Amino acid sequence: MARMFHVPLSPFCRKVRLSLAEKKIGVDLVEEKYWEADADFLRRNPAAKVPVLQLDGITMSESGPICEYLEETRPEPSLLPKDPVARLEVRRLVNWFDDKFHNEVTSKLLYERVNKKMMGQGYPDSKNVKAGAKAIKYHLDYMTWLLDHRRWLAGDQMTLADFAAAAHLSSLDYISDVDWNRSAVVKDWYAKIKSRPAFRNILADQVPGFPPPRHYNDLDF
Amino acid sequence: MARMFHVPLSPFCRKVRLSLAEKKIGVDLVEEKYWEADADFLRRNPAAKVPVLQLDGITMSESGPICEYLEETRPEPSLLPKDPVARLEVRRLVNWFDDKFHNEVTSKLLYERVNKKMMGQGYPDSKNVKAGAKAIKYHLDYMTWLLDHRRWLAGDQMTLADFAAAAHLSSLDYISDVDWNRSAVVKDWYAKIKSRPAFRNILADQVPGFPPPRHYNDLDF
Repeated sequence: MARMFHVPLSPFCRKVRLSLAEKKIGVDLVEEKYWEADADFLRRNPAAKVPVLQLDGITMSESGPICEYLEETRPEPSLLPKDPVARLEVRRLVNWFDDKFHNEVTSKLLYERVNKKMMGQGYPDSKNVKAGAKAIKYHLDYMTWLLDHRRWLAGDQMTLADFAAAAHLSSLDYISDVDWNRSAVVKDWYAKIKSRPAFRNILADQVPGFPPPRHYNDLDF
Repeated sequence: MARMFHVPLSPFCRKVRLSLAEKKIGVDLVEEKYWEADADFLRRNPAAKVPVLQLDGITMSESGPICEYLEETRPEPSLLPKDPVARLEVRRLVNWFDDKFHNEVTSKLLYERVNKKMMGQGYPDSKNVKAGAKAIKYHLDYMTWLLDHRRWLAGDQMTLADFAAAAHLSSLDYISDVDWNRSAVVKDWYAKIKSRPAFRNILADQVPGFPPPRHYNDLDF
């Protein structure tokens, strides 16, 4: 049985949880207040970040490398195509969401509204919230453009790129920050991901002080 | 012949340049003022970041995915070991430098001192410079700890982790922000990397308005 130190709404943890579930690797989830950086946790990951995964007798950190490790050691079902050019596109989009989307949207909305309160760092900065609410529209439009050309974000098969995107969007959906009416193709794509068994655990998350909206775990949202 | 859109002091571009040179892939370098985000460049990379590499008839972005692609299509000389656990450690450290070191050090020193001026965004914020100067000490100590246990940062062979670290440190060394006297093992490690033929092109960089210090391209620094 794997064990993972995480926080429920972290998109990086959610991406790994989705990969584990898709590959049917059972995991014990342990909530970790990583910002308190206690000595035990720092020994597990000196970078003081979640997720930290214990599997195969190893303690692993960094969600990108963890997902690559899971692909290499449990290749079925595959979340990364075989062809180098197709892999490049999957990884480009994973980085798009984990870097660009994270900086422009997730950190401006989720971190302002939820993480700051959890960490006792005060109230959301309205300038940041406004910037995040504006930027997410541009990202939803980019996803629409991709999904107008492809079945899944990186091509014809579901990949880590879809899980990275769904991890961020699901965390933002938990705080009602995704306008699903903006794009029918993005909504359809999210409905497909949301109905996968791997997603059930994500939809059951409950963060004290932040009750999810009713549509959050509704498959017909 | 490959073509790469870059800026000389970008550690992400330098990491790719080092990989290309180590694998003996010739490249035409084109300086790109990515922050001006002109339409031609946005067509190449909608994320508006460098590096952008044109190779094998494809336009690629994101330094991490590019390096993985180069590994997969030109496996010799190898910069990523075969064993999944060893690969995990290489990728963890690449992320350490490209995420944690980048946020805590590179963005606080290089971007404040050089990028702000290049982009016409005014003067360095002394609070950031101070924070970066403090944080780099902690990172050099972490590198010392790793190199006390290993020949190279991720193990017994030189890997992408060494190139990621050397890319950041070389850019900071260009503006004299690395105290090489802090750690003899880190200095020895950097001397080994610096003397590789792949590094020559990096040591020849000249940024107008920012002359490098004399020790920058001296192999006996």
